[in-house]
Amino acid sequence: MQIGGIEAGGTKFVCAVSEETSRNIIDKVSVPTTDPKETLREVKLFFDKYDIKALGIASFGPIDLDTKSETYGSFLNTPKDKWKHYPLLEQLRANYSIPVFMDTDVNAACLAEYKYGAGRGADTSLYITVGTGIGAGLVQNGSIYQGKNHSEMGHVIIKKHKDDSFDGCCPYHGSCIEGMASGFAIERRYGKTGTELVDNNQVWEIEAYYLAQALMNYYVILRPEKMILGGGVMRQEKLYPLIRQYFTEQMNDYLDAGPVEELIVAPELNDEQGVIGAMELINRGYSNSRQ
Amino acid sequence: MQIGGIEAGGTKFVCAVSEETSRNIIDKVSVPTTDPKETLREVKLFFDKYDIKALGIASFGPIDLDTKSETYGSFLNTPKDKWKHYPLLEQLRANYSIPVFMDTDVNAACLAEYKYGAGRGADTSLYITVGTGIGAGLVQNGSIYQGKNHSEMGHVIIKKHKDDSFDGCCPYHGSCIEGMASGFAIERRYGKTGTELVDNNQVWEIEAYYLAQALMNYYVILRPEKMILGGGVMRQEKLYPLIRQYFTEQMNDYLDAGPVEELIVAPELNDEQGVIGAMELINRGYSNSRQ
Repeated sequence: MQIGGIEAGGTKFVCAVSEETSRNIIDKVSVPTTDPKETLREVKLFFDKYDIKALGIASFGPIDLDTKSETYGSFLNTPKDKWKHYPLLEQLRANYSIPVFMDTDVNAACLAEYKYGAGRGADTSLYITVGTGIGAGLVQNGSIYQGKNHSEMGHVIIKKHKDDSFDGCCPYHGSCIEGMASGFAIERRYGKTGTELVDNNQVWEIEAYYLAQALMNYYVILRPEKMILGGGVMRQEKLYPLIRQYFTEQMNDYLDAGPVEELIVAPELNDEQGVIGAMELINRGYSNSRQ
Repeated sequence: MQIGGIEAGGTKFVCAVSEETSRNIIDKVSVPTTDPKETLREVKLFFDKYDIKALGIASFGPIDLDTKSETYGSFLNTPKDKWKHYPLLEQLRANYSIPVFMDTDVNAACLAEYKYGAGRGADTSLYITVGTGIGAGLVQNGSIYQGKNHSEMGHVIIKKHKDDSFDGCCPYHGSCIEGMASGFAIERRYGKTGTELVDNNQVWEIEAYYLAQALMNYYVILRPEKMILGGGVMRQEKLYPLIRQYFTEQMNDYLDAGPVEELIVAPELNDEQGVIGAMELINRGYSNSRQ
């Protein structure tokens, strides 16, 4: 049996078809995120080559995931104007006469890493992406955590670094963690991309200082066994030891978090955690009533 | 059948005996928290008058609630020296030859408010206590949330108020929410208790500003339907509208949190949420394998 998965991101939609299990990917394509009509037409061209029996979609957000809501499966207040309020799930269900299951990109990535990657065996696993934006998803006891709606962990409040004069770029909160430490924030603060700033140590000191604060907030609230940091900004691998160092300093031995090298880790699924997770939503969808 | 409950606090142990259900309390006593031996002797004198078949204890923290740990049920790094590392659960199990179940004071209070109080019908309910210290517990889909160990939400990072020169009093983190907004922090900052400062509006503006930040951090991470604020400091009822106002300003319409008067609310169980919740742990203990 073939199944399909979409990792719907702000710049591209990664689509994959897998045979039997989510990890046995037989074909994959990347479609640019332009306007909904055009992007979904490209997506359909890809899947029409196959005979998929179910589809999972892991989407950028915020999307409405309150199953009791009239706008379940639609985008909410995204800064991407063309996608604002777009009924993505409804449209996909109209395009394909098969079951379609949806969650956020970070929740799906977390589920994939929990099942096959850095979160294996960790009953409470958190996956954080630090890219253009910042988001995080939590798996607890094998299930994706969700309150009334999905979490929006990129908007936690943190304290300003003493040497940072940047006021933050989150259009809603200014200096929340996304406003201070996303890839977009780095570009806005320095007028250069992270890649152009590789050798500027202060950039990464400040970045790690902020991310460690966000991790501390996640940690004291959620007490995860693993905090898996992925996304484009985390390609600067020197960030991992710096974040661990600031996290340890800020926690100050208050709680026994175990060895920090085992707590704060990199993903293991080679950038396929999103699309594998999307296909894992199909299993999740069939095993509970939430569709 | 009679059951017993203990709300173990830093200043007193509230003990109750109930007939059949947790809410049918037939006797209640308050014992000062001195040293473990003396306090538990007083507790035993009370319960020995009854024929309780099971005991629930809702304790101040931090305690070790990792069932896989060798020190499960013991206090950890509490500033209360006489209780540091004290094996409370083990001692209670030795004192009574009946099943004994344990969780944190805030988790138990949250469970009680979820079942009978301000969290009724809210699948994701958060209970926050603002007293000498600050802590919070979460119930999701009828169960107490726990990661690797219990949450320590009083230690989230928040931003400093521009008119506040106090550096915070948390011995571990200085200016975390407990260090800035607990009853102890108010006393340390002003040299007076909250009760003595009732008419000083700036005190409550600053207090609400901080608590609203903590609530925003809890909200974006957990997406609760109810955030129930209890504890001694919250007896200043004017805090509720101020906190709602700052929360609304800080969220800045990013997420649809519904009417803020319904989201941020007072407890409804008249200071019995802790001890009722302690007895509810008995049901929880019998219905799952975690004991």
